[in-house]
Amino acid sequence: MKKSAVKIGIAGIGGYTGSVLYSILLNHPHGDIVWVSSEPSHVGKKIKHLFPHFMEKGEREVISLESALEMEVDVVFTALPHKIPMKYAEKIVKRGIRLIDLSADFRFKDPKKYEKWYGVAHSCPGLLEKSVYGLPEIFRDEIRNAEIIGNPGCYPTAAIIALYPLLKERIVEFPVIIDAKSGASGAGRAPSEGNIYCEVNEGLKPYGVFTHRHAPEIEEVLKMADTSAEAVFIPHLVPMTRGIEETIYCRLKEEIEEDKIFSIYNEFYKDEPFVQIFDSSTPPLTKYVLGTNKCFLWMKKEGKNLVIVSCIDNLVKGASGQAVQNFNILFGFSEETSLTQLAIYP
Amino acid sequence: MKKSAVKIGIAGIGGYTGSVLYSILLNHPHGDIVWVSSEPSHVGKKIKHLFPHFMEKGEREVISLESALEMEVDVVFTALPHKIPMKYAEKIVKRGIRLIDLSADFRFKDPKKYEKWYGVAHSCPGLLEKSVYGLPEIFRDEIRNAEIIGNPGCYPTAAIIALYPLLKERIVEFPVIIDAKSGASGAGRAPSEGNIYCEVNEGLKPYGVFTHRHAPEIEEVLKMADTSAEAVFIPHLVPMTRGIEETIYCRLKEEIEEDKIFSIYNEFYKDEPFVQIFDSSTPPLTKYVLGTNKCFLWMKKEGKNLVIVSCIDNLVKGASGQAVQNFNILFGFSEETSLTQLAIYP
Amino acid sequence: MKKSAVKIGIAGIGGYTGSVLYSILLNHPHGDIVWVSSEPSHVGKKIKHLFPHFMEKGEREVISLESALEMEVDVVFTALPHKIPMKYAEKIVKRGIRLIDLSADFRFKDPKKYEKWYGVAHSCPGLLEKSVYGLPEIFRDEIRNAEIIGNPGCYPTAAIIALYPLLKERIVEFPVIIDAKSGASGAGRAPSEGNIYCEVNEGLKPYGVFTHRHAPEIEEVLKMADTSAEAVFIPHLVPMTRGIEETIYCRLKEEIEEDKIFSIYNEFYKDEPFVQIFDSSTPPLTKYVLGTNKCFLWMKKEGKNLVIVSCIDNLVKGASGQAVQNFNILFGFSEETSLTQLAIYP
Amino acid sequence: MKKSAVKIGIAGIGGYTGSVLYSILLNHPHGDIVWVSSEPSHVGKKIKHLFPHFMEKGEREVISLESALEMEVDVVFTALPHKIPMKYAEKIVKRGIRLIDLSADFRFKDPKKYEKWYGVAHSCPGLLEKSVYGLPEIFRDEIRNAEIIGNPGCYPTAAIIALYPLLKERIVEFPVIIDAKSGASGAGRAPSEGNIYCEVNEGLKPYGVFTHRHAPEIEEVLKMADTSAEAVFIPHLVPMTRGIEETIYCRLKEEIEEDKIFSIYNEFYKDEPFVQIFDSSTPPLTKYVLGTNKCFLWMKKEGKNLVIVSCIDNLVKGASGQAVQNFNILFGFSEETSLTQLAIYP
Repeated sequence: MKKSAVKIGIAGIGGYTGSVLYSILLNHPHGDIVWVSSEPSHVGKKIKHLFPHFMEKGEREVISLESALEMEVDVVFTALPHKIPMKYAEKIVKRGIRLIDLSADFRFKDPKKYEKWYGVAHSCPGLLEKSVYGLPEIFRDEIRNAEIIGNPGCYPTAAIIALYPLLKERIVEFPVIIDAKSGASGAGRAPSEGNIYCEVNEGLKPYGVFTHRHAPEIEEVLKMADTSAEAVFIPHLVPMTRGIEETIYCRLKEEIEEDKIFSIYNEFYKDEPFVQIFDSSTPPLTKYVLGTNKCFLWMKKEGKNLVIVSCIDNLVKGASGQAVQNFNILFGFSEETSLTQLAIYP
Repeated sequence: MKKSAVKIGIAGIGGYTGSVLYSILLNHPHGDIVWVSSEPSHVGKKIKHLFPHFMEKGEREVISLESALEMEVDVVFTALPHKIPMKYAEKIVKRGIRLIDLSADFRFKDPKKYEKWYGVAHSCPGLLEKSVYGLPEIFRDEIRNAEIIGNPGCYPTAAIIALYPLLKERIVEFPVIIDAKSGASGAGRAPSEGNIYCEVNEGLKPYGVFTHRHAPEIEEVLKMADTSAEAVFIPHLVPMTRGIEETIYCRLKEEIEEDKIFSIYNEFYKDEPFVQIFDSSTPPLTKYVLGTNKCFLWMKKEGKNLVIVSCIDNLVKGASGQAVQNFNILFGFSEETSLTQLAIYP
Repeated sequence: MKKSAVKIGIAGIGGYTGSVLYSILLNHPHGDIVWVSSEPSHVGKKIKHLFPHFMEKGEREVISLESALEMEVDVVFTALPHKIPMKYAEKIVKRGIRLIDLSADFRFKDPKKYEKWYGVAHSCPGLLEKSVYGLPEIFRDEIRNAEIIGNPGCYPTAAIIALYPLLKERIVEFPVIIDAKSGASGAGRAPSEGNIYCEVNEGLKPYGVFTHRHAPEIEEVLKMADTSAEAVFIPHLVPMTRGIEETIYCRLKEEIEEDKIFSIYNEFYKDEPFVQIFDSSTPPLTKYVLGTNKCFLWMKKEGKNLVIVSCIDNLVKGASGQAVQNFNILFGFSEETSLTQLAIYP
Repeated sequence: MKKSAVKIGIAGIGGYTGSVLYSILLNHPHGDIVWVSSEPSHVGKKIKHLFPHFMEKGEREVISLESALEMEVDVVFTALPHKIPMKYAEKIVKRGIRLIDLSADFRFKDPKKYEKWYGVAHSCPGLLEKSVYGLPEIFRDEIRNAEIIGNPGCYPTAAIIALYPLLKERIVEFPVIIDAKSGASGAGRAPSEGNIYCEVNEGLKPYGVFTHRHAPEIEEVLKMADTSAEAVFIPHLVPMTRGIEETIYCRLKEEIEEDKIFSIYNEFYKDEPFVQIFDSSTPPLTKYVLGTNKCFLWMKKEGKNLVIVSCIDNLVKGASGQAVQNFNILFGFSEETSLTQLAIYP
């Protein structure tokens, strides 16, 4: 065990976000993974039996969340289905353990909104006040002292990073249009007819039209930049494993120079290690960020029509990498620690 | 040879649209393929050497376009790169041969627009008047007597079918947003760094932002429905072989019932064999039309925001199938002749 | 209904082989589909709700197998999981209805072998004698009068067509090596962790090493050509939807001319509509047979080492297409009826 | 620049092996990249213009190989097409610079064999004696003092690691059968009709049957383990970007226990950081090694038939990772330096 390292528990190692989290944290110089848990049917198995690619790094045994929560750690990452983490949050927080939750349970300030979109009453609405939306590029200061971090959804991460600086300037009309495309890993590892290979391969489709739960999450944060913000958000399933691309259509209130747009973004993100204005005449490919914690932004204007392109790896900046970024902020480590991977290409 | 069949020449058998055309016409009960041509390096080869999947149906030898044009046929399909067909059009038309051109050379009425977007002056602007934009759902009557048919682009086919009926009603604000996604076969068979497997696979990207040549094609036809029509059109390359999906965002001038929207489409397309209002609470997958000449339309409204989804197979309804549909109209055959394929699924 | 057509029932419309069967039979000029059935949860739904690509051709309602078996038909296709068809076979056959079973229930002559590999005793061993292995290229005569046809497995179809003519000549040593690769549709439509998109995509693996149930099926038939036949058969899962390629390694007892090998195959298959010696210096791509009922064979020899390549579409010649081929033989129709599709390419 | 680091030149940054090499070496704690070169059309461009995924890590400018060779470095990696490196080798070696060549130019001891398979006479046969075949698991001691390292081909790496220990035991009959499958990145980045997306996607094919240049490379090394070694090697192109899987079929001279087989491998590779006996009842998926320098081995026996499965990432252990492993050995660094990446999964 690393000396004076932060002690970490990971709940939900059996899913994709859990396993990517484990990957990143394994090599963290200041973190020690104390336990990993998963669903009852996985308890007692080794990690390598769930994810053989870990091999000798996967010798650790999966325990139950119940027994895990008896152990002493400094922080718990919950990579669990929505509605589960809130059941354990109180117990975790009471013991002074920080909670970084990758589900939607702590993303909304308003429990009514949670109830509306997730179909159940929030079980610990009092904790919502103590939780911070874990998008460091916007809420870094609040994250530093948060007891609970509601790690953002994948689509909202790409959308908010793309729109927040612009909306602060009050120069766009609403609604903005967010046409989002994602690889299949966004749907997780639980099998269903909709995500088997033969149904996803060689086809593309929109889904969740006007009903996707990331829509209110996006709007809630955008309204902090501009209270009148409205967005039409339509996600699409693309036959690839990882990657999100969002093409965002804005109508400018008045024509302004493209350079001015660029300088808004350059200024806003000038010190950000993970947001990169993609310096090219053509837009980025999602693959350029595969395996990285980066968000690539690109923009182009014609008349009053502005198009913004935003690319992330849904499992890294859109989930587990961002969770580690939040962990780094929370515990005072350099924000890039363990997050400097280059893209795997081709 | 079939008795009193229409005699057909196919120029450009070496590309994807040419080969799909050949596939469809092979089984046409009233058409006889008299010659196929391709680029000089293919001349003298058999079709099966270019496309081995044809095997015993590919024994025919490829000839040069020059020698082909000496032969007697009733119609020529040109599945050639832009700028080539217009060089031969005059010669073809003069001999009383109908021309169905799959390139962009005869899609615009205005030679200036062609010049602006394709970078060269049109070589036979006089023929543009004799040419008809080959979208049967809108221009069937004109197609019947056309000497030249400018077969529509793949993206415009999906976009115009989706928008034309609505625009006739003058109920939407402009611009409309057309976010289009296409499989890689849209880029043809000529190798380039951008279309090799490892560059396309597992990645998605927008391209031709504000510069794609299908944008003016779409706008020209939409303006026939509503002279004030404007569209923002952004295409994306998706890691799949075939299929186009367009998600189209419209802002309604005033709220109207969703049923009213449906009835506009149902009325407009009630007799169309190839346009299908997709009867489902969720949008179609591109794969549902794979290998077919169908266009699936789906729509949903929330407040004043209307989303229309349009799916086609870019090589069939978006190119060669539509060309055969035009052929059927031109020669008085039932429009579905040789175009009744069901989708290949999964 | 077509006049004096053969009346057909299809059991198992909810899976891939059932739906492909439906596709092919829909257009059969001498067959009328009288009923389609599926599992209880599908009963009462329309086919288009299970497979939206059928759309207006999918208006027929799915009924339960129990009620279906009360109806009058001439033939039943069972595209059901192994162990189910044998429960209904007696009832079907007693009524004089022909049974074409796509499962493994009627492929073995020896009920002991079935029991060993499928883990349950055969419930109607007496019917095995009345059943014929439905590989027309070898057993056409027996098929003509069969009461029950055990439609071959996908891997065995490709392997036996490739090896049978050669083994009859007694010129190869044993074991032969069959390295088989299949797209994911071979595993059917039931979701499991092993067949979700993210687990199959971008990876390849062998499976069922020395334990795959198609191994004894292959050996049983090969032993009819040469009683000493032995084969090592290893299947692999490939990230594609359809297609099987088998690379078969034979060691010749004595060197013979490659021409001699070719003439063995040419002679054996000279009248076969669906077996094609692939005439090329390089082997075929699985995609050349996509959507077709063809088997492409290719071979090359170096010294005593002979390599045979065999390609089929696992859902057509490897399942539903072959079932229709058997149907055509059984009812005296031309064998190619409804099976003349060209490959979808690209 | 790192203090007292090894100074590195990379020739061929425009291809996949060159770019992966750059990726790995960027983070090497004891190496400094002094120059990168590429073909004339790339000279003057920044790396990020060839591979945008490098972004801020790709600011370095590409220079010509001619000017690069004037600069002072300790080692040159040549990730160039076959036949090019041998033109520059003498010049490089004369100056005391170590050469790690990723092409085939220095893999054969016998210039006649090179000439036979690569079609040209070797231009510096004298240097072949000074070169070592860079497979550390077999030739580590020779690599330590080599002036030139002929970095192995991707297929030979997987095959030799799988077979060498077994062949040393003289327990298998010949020929062994190596059925190899590779993703498309093995063919490099140069566009050709055979490697465009639509031709590779959704299809699988064998190629280079009895003619692939890796066959003699494999046999030459296997003969060092057993002089009577013979192998039939057939590669296949699989629709995925990265990964090689080889299914190897051996016939044992006499039956022996499976445990004995395992202990041969465990003993041979017990200290190897990159060879892993895959501990599972089912074989590995290629994806388990994606992005890593690992080779996963798995084996199973039935009677005298032994099947060995070997998986690598063709661009890492099969090319650039192994080159860095050789670099580490050459310069006395820990062999795993900069090569500890975990697999990207899913």
